Amino acid sequence: MNYQKILEEITTQTNHLQEKGKIASYIPELAKVSRDSFGISLHFLRGDHYWIGDADKRFSIQSIAKVFSLSMAIGLLGEKIFQRVGVEPSGTAFNSLLQLDYERGIPRNPFINAGALVIMDILFSELKHPKQALLDFVRKLSGNSDIDFNQAVVTSEKSQGFRNTALANLLKSHRNLNNEVEEILDFYFHLCSIEMSCNELSHTFLGFANHGKIPGSDEQILSTSQTKRLNALMQTCGFYDEAGEFSFTVGLPGKSGVGGGIVAVYPEKFSISVWSPELNEKGNSIRGMKTLELFTTKSKLSVF
Amino acid sequence: MNYQKILEEITTQTNHLQEKGKIASYIPELAKVSRDSFGISLHFLRGDHYWIGDADKRFSIQSIAKVFSLSMAIGLLGEKIFQRVGVEPSGTAFNSLLQLDYERGIPRNPFINAGALVIMDILFSELKHPKQALLDFVRKLSGNSDIDFNQAVVTSEKSQGFRNTALANLLKSHRNLNNEVEEILDFYFHLCSIEMSCNELSHTFLGFANHGKIPGSDEQILSTSQTKRLNALMQTCGFYDEAGEFSFTVGLPGKSGVGGGIVAVYPEKFSISVWSPELNEKGNSIRGMKTLELFTTKSKLSVF
Amino acid sequence: MNYQKILEEITTQTNHLQEKGKIASYIPELAKVSRDSFGISLHFLRGDHYWIGDADKRFSIQSIAKVFSLSMAIGLLGEKIFQRVGVEPSGTAFNSLLQLDYERGIPRNPFINAGALVIMDILFSELKHPKQALLDFVRKLSGNSDIDFNQAVVTSEKSQGFRNTALANLLKSHRNLNNEVEEILDFYFHLCSIEMSCNELSHTFLGFANHGKIPGSDEQILSTSQTKRLNALMQTCGFYDEAGEFSFTVGLPGKSGVGGGIVAVYPEKFSISVWSPELNEKGNSIRGMKTLELFTTKSKLSVF
Amino acid sequence: MNYQKILEEITTQTNHLQEKGKIASYIPELAKVSRDSFGISLHFLRGDHYWIGDADKRFSIQSIAKVFSLSMAIGLLGEKIFQRVGVEPSGTAFNSLLQLDYERGIPRNPFINAGALVIMDILFSELKHPKQALLDFVRKLSGNSDIDFNQAVVTSEKSQGFRNTALANLLKSHRNLNNEVEEILDFYFHLCSIEMSCNELSHTFLGFANHGKIPGSDEQILSTSQTKRLNALMQTCGFYDEAGEFSFTVGLPGKSGVGGGIVAVYPEKFSISVWSPELNEKGNSIRGMKTLELFTTKSKLSVF
Repeated sequence: MNYQKILEEITTQTNHLQEKGKIASYIPELAKVSRDSFGISLHFLRGDHYWIGDADKRFSIQSIAKVFSLSMAIGLLGEKIFQRVGVEPSGTAFNSLLQLDYERGIPRNPFINAGALVIMDILFSELKHPKQALLDFVRKLSGNSDIDFNQAVVTSEKSQGFRNTALANLLKSHRNLNNEVEEILDFYFHLCSIEMSCNELSHTFLGFANHGKIPGSDEQILSTSQTKRLNALMQTCGFYDEAGEFSFTVGLPGKSGVGGGIVAVYPEKFSISVWSPELNEKGNSIRGMKTLELFTTKSKLSVF
Repeated sequence: MNYQKILEEITTQTNHLQEKGKIASYIPELAKVSRDSFGISLHFLRGDHYWIGDADKRFSIQSIAKVFSLSMAIGLLGEKIFQRVGVEPSGTAFNSLLQLDYERGIPRNPFINAGALVIMDILFSELKHPKQALLDFVRKLSGNSDIDFNQAVVTSEKSQGFRNTALANLLKSHRNLNNEVEEILDFYFHLCSIEMSCNELSHTFLGFANHGKIPGSDEQILSTSQTKRLNALMQTCGFYDEAGEFSFTVGLPGKSGVGGGIVAVYPEKFSISVWSPELNEKGNSIRGMKTLELFTTKSKLSVF
Repeated sequence: MNYQKILEEITTQTNHLQEKGKIASYIPELAKVSRDSFGISLHFLRGDHYWIGDADKRFSIQSIAKVFSLSMAIGLLGEKIFQRVGVEPSGTAFNSLLQLDYERGIPRNPFINAGALVIMDILFSELKHPKQALLDFVRKLSGNSDIDFNQAVVTSEKSQGFRNTALANLLKSHRNLNNEVEEILDFYFHLCSIEMSCNELSHTFLGFANHGKIPGSDEQILSTSQTKRLNALMQTCGFYDEAGEFSFTVGLPGKSGVGGGIVAVYPEKFSISVWSPELNEKGNSIRGMKTLELFTTKSKLSVF
Repeated sequence: MNYQKILEEITTQTNHLQEKGKIASYIPELAKVSRDSFGISLHFLRGDHYWIGDADKRFSIQSIAKVFSLSMAIGLLGEKIFQRVGVEPSGTAFNSLLQLDYERGIPRNPFINAGALVIMDILFSELKHPKQALLDFVRKLSGNSDIDFNQAVVTSEKSQGFRNTALANLLKSHRNLNNEVEEILDFYFHLCSIEMSCNELSHTFLGFANHGKIPGSDEQILSTSQTKRLNALMQTCGFYDEAGEFSFTVGLPGKSGVGGGIVAVYPEKFSISVWSPELNEKGNSIRGMKTLELFTTKSKLSVF
């Protein structure tokens, strides 16, 4: 199959989706991205790599980074982290605070904000230099030593982080946050500020298509079983309130971020990433979603 | 790999789970099943078949049958049914009525009761003899002409169906139920009363592992794309409030019923079913869940 | 104080509120009322009576009748009815089903629909001929033997009663409804179909301003303590999601109905009723609310 | 009527309620109060005063102080404060965060914590020296210049204030908190730390029974209309999730605090306060509630 041609077709067929959505604008750093940025990158485990458009341009990966923090926590502590955070999809966002209270401060899964905060708290307690250790982990996973936080994004997020501060305090009132709220939020905003390109993302996620082993190295980040569970979590919880929609139309485990990035994996086969900053009202990239739907349809490469 | 041996090992390793749960007892017909019933059936697309225990004994498949009604509705009307029912997981059951109201009578997915009722309403409007047509569809799919409703179960369900009646009326108040409440409930309770054995279930679900084509025939029940979507829905919504847990530990699309049955598929490879009537508090078979977890672990056959 | 003059002033000062709201139109019988109907009636315990406008014209009193059914239940069974229904305000309507589930089928108070259904169920179990007994009770309380149900309203309500049917079934699933759903709904829709005029309403409610004794007779319908509690319930729960607003602006215990009627009492002093069919979005009469606010402001007769 | 004798009778008749509840223990300062503290104070507008037990001992008035902050805000800014906070009862506490989100950050009323925080924010924006000005206001209202904050309570509250911090941040995310979260929480915890005795409380609340005029002075704190509205709010929202119960059994506008104090008023007649630190599960004083119920029953002095 000519994958490069497929990427080209998709680019043409999704071009009309430009200007249909809104760029995340709650912080100025996200708002100033060019609306018509668009890139795809496709890495096969067997080695071939296809890409198109702005696949080398770095952007704010935002919530995609929650896959990294979760991997790191699973790798360090194993399954016991799931005593403090669940593995179930979360239903509508509008009742997330009710649900968190009702379930006594155990967030439904590690990808909703409350759950990601608990994961950061776990890492913070475990690591000597949490931010550096996180960065080292992502650099190792990606094989790229200049991946970094964006301090301007961190600062902006903090100035607008009232809802996350509310979540962190609610967790604390349920005794499911052991460190100081400010420290965990600082750590969390650093996580979300990481910048990567499509080419870097799909390359990095290959490990999750490879039973947890970094391709081209001998390093096992996660066990086969842990990797299976991470992928399952991406499948059921990776797209805010559209996890079902993504499974339904795309049929791959994946994760999105409000920076407009999406990355997905097909276990034992490939990893694919896409970037287009215009979002639908659920916070997912409009053109990105369509790109991946077309890709699994054209290539017939879906897990379902 | 010696699959028969795997099934035997699993039988031994899960034997201690007997007497750990509760048999569904809200109607007498379900309560009178023998607690220690246990069967597994595994059908590969390539033709081989493995089974163990009570795999030939029929039981009440209950919510598993929602996969049949949904398939039938997709086959008849295609994607437009998703204007009346969503494709997202539902979060906790405790706020399901709130969610249904908040989302103006559009149930979150076709596998929660409200969604299944909407599917029955769609079928009822479309079919001349709805119950017979449903039975014909299941018989065709299974290649087994004596699959039938259990009238005693239907009658019992009706006498206890207050919550489903509430749901149907709530749907009607939101104008998302076009037929009479009594007719739809009658149709729905017939659906849930269908009885099948493990061997029949795994054989029947092979079609969903086969891009929608009934194995051994030329009949295409669903298109490849429709089958992909059906499997995705099973993955994200097939286990009440444990869809995440099932994805996480088992890693296959599947569907459970309060009769203690579970069936799962691996697209392009196999279908597996298990029956053990003792349920956990979420309504899923305890031994059945563990059986499938052990199976995908031992066989390394998970989609993730 | 010249009360007749006050009523005239209020009529003039609220005239601009005509055409600001919507007449209840979910059933045709309510929709066909003349929009500009307007009447006030004020009965003092000491005997004087003032009225203006359409105070002699009967209209559908709807939920105001819940005060009668509750009084009857308290009179028959005393405080033990509050084991099956609460005495707390209900918060927003949008989560009423969640709340009913969360509180295990005990409605928050007897004036929300679920609570009124429980009261009807209590009466139905207690009375030999429930509908006739209810009518007899209201006729005795009002001293008016031709007060009656409107059968056309009953029939219409039934054809649109999906939400109430859902509530009744939900109550039944929580085992807080002992009789058949159909019977209780029929009884409830009869209750709500009662028609009375402003003059009849204010006269009838004088008993609740008179420690439970029908003025001009020796008959004690409720004890002093029971009457106090009934009035307290009207104060905190009598206006759907505007009980606070009514207390805040009017400052009297009272009850409204979607027919556009409102009646209020000042214990030991008077009873006042008003009718104007145009409703605000909360279901309360716009001109009626303003009329009573102006009345307590001008007369300085508020309990607070 | 011999009111002193009534207070004595009530003391005897409620004595068995000692040791039935729990003292608030979330901060050590509240936990160290003597469990059997008990006092009542009754001030009539006409001048007579009755009291019994520990009526002169100061305790932490906690949420009772919200009546002072609300009065101050109404006095300074009038009705426009109700653009930022509602006047409706709040329903169950368990969904308070859902409700606050659903209603876009407008707390249901000024007595739930979120609403009280908004009132503090309003005062903080308006006042040059907020804490001193608040203290001056309470001292003027009470005619007692040594009423003060308890700094140990403030410090303790801050160390446990995660839920209130969550609320404040949620308000801020809805843009209904204009000042810094820390400043408003500091101000709020000062408010709640005020200490007064029963004799001081009932004397101070006489103003709310006196159309807003401080008895024995010419100072009008609130207008007649504003006082009416304040009393209405106490009636419908003054007792957490038991406002209905208090109206129902006591029948007076009032306010409680987790320090075990309750104060109530009968407009134009009297003010009564009671203190007993053991609380029911809703956070209201057990013996205090019963004391006031017996008082209005024995004296026949209820507004209903």
